[in-house]
Amino acid sequence: MFPGIEDEQFIRGDVPMTKQEIRILTIAKAHIRPDSVVWDVGAGTGSISIEAALLAKEGHVYAVERNPEGIRLIGANAAKFGVKNLTAVESEAPQGLSELPPCDAAIIGGSGRQLDPILDMIASRLKPGGRVVLNCITIQTLASCLTYMRAHKKTFSYEAVQVQVNRLQAVGPYDMAKGINPIYIVAGEKI
Amino acid sequence: MFPGIEDEQFIRGDVPMTKQEIRILTIAKAHIRPDSVVWDVGAGTGSISIEAALLAKEGHVYAVERNPEGIRLIGANAAKFGVKNLTAVESEAPQGLSELPPCDAAIIGGSGRQLDPILDMIASRLKPGGRVVLNCITIQTLASCLTYMRAHKKTFSYEAVQVQVNRLQAVGPYDMAKGINPIYIVAGEKI
Amino acid sequence: MFPGIEDEQFIRGDVPMTKQEIRILTIAKAHIRPDSVVWDVGAGTGSISIEAALLAKEGHVYAVERNPEGIRLIGANAAKFGVKNLTAVESEAPQGLSELPPCDAAIIGGSGRQLDPILDMIASRLKPGGRVVLNCITIQTLASCLTYMRAHKKTFSYEAVQVQVNRLQAVGPYDMAKGINPIYIVAGEKI
Amino acid sequence: MFPGIEDEQFIRGDVPMTKQEIRILTIAKAHIRPDSVVWDVGAGTGSISIEAALLAKEGHVYAVERNPEGIRLIGANAAKFGVKNLTAVESEAPQGLSELPPCDAAIIGGSGRQLDPILDMIASRLKPGGRVVLNCITIQTLASCLTYMRAHKKTFSYEAVQVQVNRLQAVGPYDMAKGINPIYIVAGEKI
Repeated sequence: MFPGIEDEQFIRGDVPMTKQEIRILTIAKAHIRPDSVVWDVGAGTGSISIEAALLAKEGHVYAVERNPEGIRLIGANAAKFGVKNLTAVESEAPQGLSELPPCDAAIIGGSGRQLDPILDMIASRLKPGGRVVLNCITIQTLASCLTYMRAHKKTFSYEAVQVQVNRLQAVGPYDMAKGINPIYIVAGEKI
Repeated sequence: MFPGIEDEQFIRGDVPMTKQEIRILTIAKAHIRPDSVVWDVGAGTGSISIEAALLAKEGHVYAVERNPEGIRLIGANAAKFGVKNLTAVESEAPQGLSELPPCDAAIIGGSGRQLDPILDMIASRLKPGGRVVLNCITIQTLASCLTYMRAHKKTFSYEAVQVQVNRLQAVGPYDMAKGINPIYIVAGEKI
Repeated sequence: MFPGIEDEQFIRGDVPMTKQEIRILTIAKAHIRPDSVVWDVGAGTGSISIEAALLAKEGHVYAVERNPEGIRLIGANAAKFGVKNLTAVESEAPQGLSELPPCDAAIIGGSGRQLDPILDMIASRLKPGGRVVLNCITIQTLASCLTYMRAHKKTFSYEAVQVQVNRLQAVGPYDMAKGINPIYIVAGEKI
Repeated sequence: MFPGIEDEQFIRGDVPMTKQEIRILTIAKAHIRPDSVVWDVGAGTGSISIEAALLAKEGHVYAVERNPEGIRLIGANAAKFGVKNLTAVESEAPQGLSELPPCDAAIIGGSGRQLDPILDMIASRLKPGGRVVLNCITIQTLASCLTYMRAHKKTFSYEAVQVQVNRLQAVGPYDMAKGINPIYIVAGEKI
């Protein structure tokens, strides 16, 4: 099954959710294989975890989220999409990461102001050739992330893109572009 | 006085208003001189008319708007900014345009599905070297406008840009980009 | 295997190629399943066909391209990526489409000024629930495509997005955004 | 006279030049008045200085540029546009700034890795209510600039936008969007 679940299909509550196009590109840049072990840090509603779990059919996804409402939504979404290879972990990061098995891919949707220790933990537990992908919605997180990648160039090569999606909305006989907030996606590959 | 009045300074009511950056670029592309006669078609709150009138100090601006609430706001904004070289004309377009004096610049903020007759009227009343500038928020209006310009290449040369502005919003220690709807600006210069 | 082949990995020649992020989103919006029959119309280098064929492992991809150099590149890329479930068809569209089996998904990368007859052909040969996805780089193609979808609303529901990707480029101690041309992606789903 | 000189009208050589739309918005955010004293730091070809000088007719513009080729171009452009209220200063910044008269507006087009000392100098010499406007093309410069503004919130209030302009290019019967590199504009107002 291919990524591309519509936003409306996920059970959401009030937890913010990555938009479809960003979710697709984020997962694509994580290079998930059928047997991958994936960490999803700051998993929110679990929308990325669900798509990752559908790809890593013979692998496993660990969805780490500190918000109990998020943990509940991740479970509800896993049930809705029939996903069984997903474990929700209620924890702050990086604390909750130390007990997880080493991973082939790590996705950081939210870092709760602990970006560097989270990246340090991932750097030590990501398998060679594995990828860490970050969604940055603030300039400060993006800058910190670039600083980290530049300071660890023996550990990671990186690429970064800003993605902006404008959705056309039909209004009577017209189609009008509605701007969606742009996001930066940074992907580091472990050397 | 230079364009760049902040959005918040205009009296707005519920009438949609062109955002500051788009207003500035729109006016810049109209090539308004101190003695210009300017038509502002679909003038809305009059924000573009006000900026144009401040530039065309020895000229005059005609703000054509069919919505009575718009006409009221244009008057209120003219009073607030001490603008006297501005006449608000309550009318549909192109009807209300036929009695105006020939213009050096015409700005079309809204065309009420009468784009072609409005452009025909402007083509006949714009002075040589004068400019017509359109803000297009829908793909259909943009496409019609490009079709018109291509069909009248003996009358107009044109340029067109899409402009997207993301405003950084301070949220605690972070600056986060908020997407604003993109807009197309088409400028035709009468040959 | 998941989409996300790097641009550099494809054999390209001088044929223009869809950029990675656009390729990923285009394919995601086509909802390709493991057993899908996919038409790729205006296949160019075959980069989208290759990704589609890797997803539709038990299905088949027909890459229709009028340019013989493109046909050669499609073959070379299929060989490079070990793809066997792909047939390159050297033909204009819609002519070459009439002999293909009905499809579950159709992707239009280029329409050679034959957009409406191509969409008519696809409308008649796409299975219910199947999707047609178009990449539009010009305003005129986008407008035609929207007009078609609106005129055939009993056949298709549609969505459309504009996607702009800015790639950060490392220049000494700095990361600088390089704009890539924006593209519109329109997806129609057969009712 | 209103800003909006076309890029092609400036004498450019090989020195990079701010694109028209960015130049217009940058100058608009500087709130230049007819009697303003303006500093243009990292003036390049002088395109911003020229537009500023045309606005500040009774004021004066100081164009500071370390590159002798830039100094030559600034002179050539001043001559071409008949601008006399402009002084080109060949110097590194902030060194060359210390001897200039206090300013009403400062524009930073390039900071040569001396952003903080340049901002310190401007903070001490900008008149209350005056504005400093920066064009940031790298994430690191933007982040430094935001950090500076946040650390000096008793001196400056600030706003920041990212602007992306896509220019439509006519290709036969089509208009095709060409992406131009996005830029961040930060404006600080002295309290």
